[in-house]
Amino acid sequence: MGKAKGTPPRRVEVRVELKPGVMDAEALSTEKALGLLGVKDLDGVHIARVYELTFTGIDAEAAMDRARECVERLLANPVIHQVSLRALEH
Amino acid sequence: MGKAKGTPPRRVEVRVELKPGVMDAEALSTEKALGLLGVKDLDGVHIARVYELTFTGIDAEAAMDRARECVERLLANPVIHQVSLRALEH
Repeated sequence: MGKAKGTPPRRVEVRVELKPGVMDAEALSTEKALGLLGVKDLDGVHIARVYELTFTGIDAEAAMDRARECVERLLANPVIHQVSLRALEH
Repeated sequence: MGKAKGTPPRRVEVRVELKPGVMDAEALSTEKALGLLGVKDLDGVHIARVYELTFTGIDAEAAMDRARECVERLLANPVIHQVSLRALEH
């Protein structure tokens, strides 16, 4: 694991969303706006942000570790966000 | 199709992202910030926004039509965004 020259780029998808119970003002206003714009039968909007991170020169396991670093350092706030990570095919 | 009383809620995931070639200032600044924070081997950040829409009282096909309506009316700008939709399991 770790450094691996000549390896293909590794992509990791990080999905960040608010934890259940945390009010999502953006989702609520989106839902309201869609109703006002005439969309029928809508009964809920949930929003997530997806980061697709590309790493080079490292193997898949190391890329996943790096992605976790990104989450901890910048991409999510553990108090309010839940995060899921998955490796993407090249 | 159309109205279907007693059907389960239908969920559609709408993924909105900038088209290739459209500059994504947020992704660029995220990538730069992660580098400054010490994350190694990162070679690209791509950001997408995911809307999970829940519809009630309609079947899966109608829910997909409604989701397309949401995209056209509010969620995406066809000039700069590409959109993908998929039905989610209940």
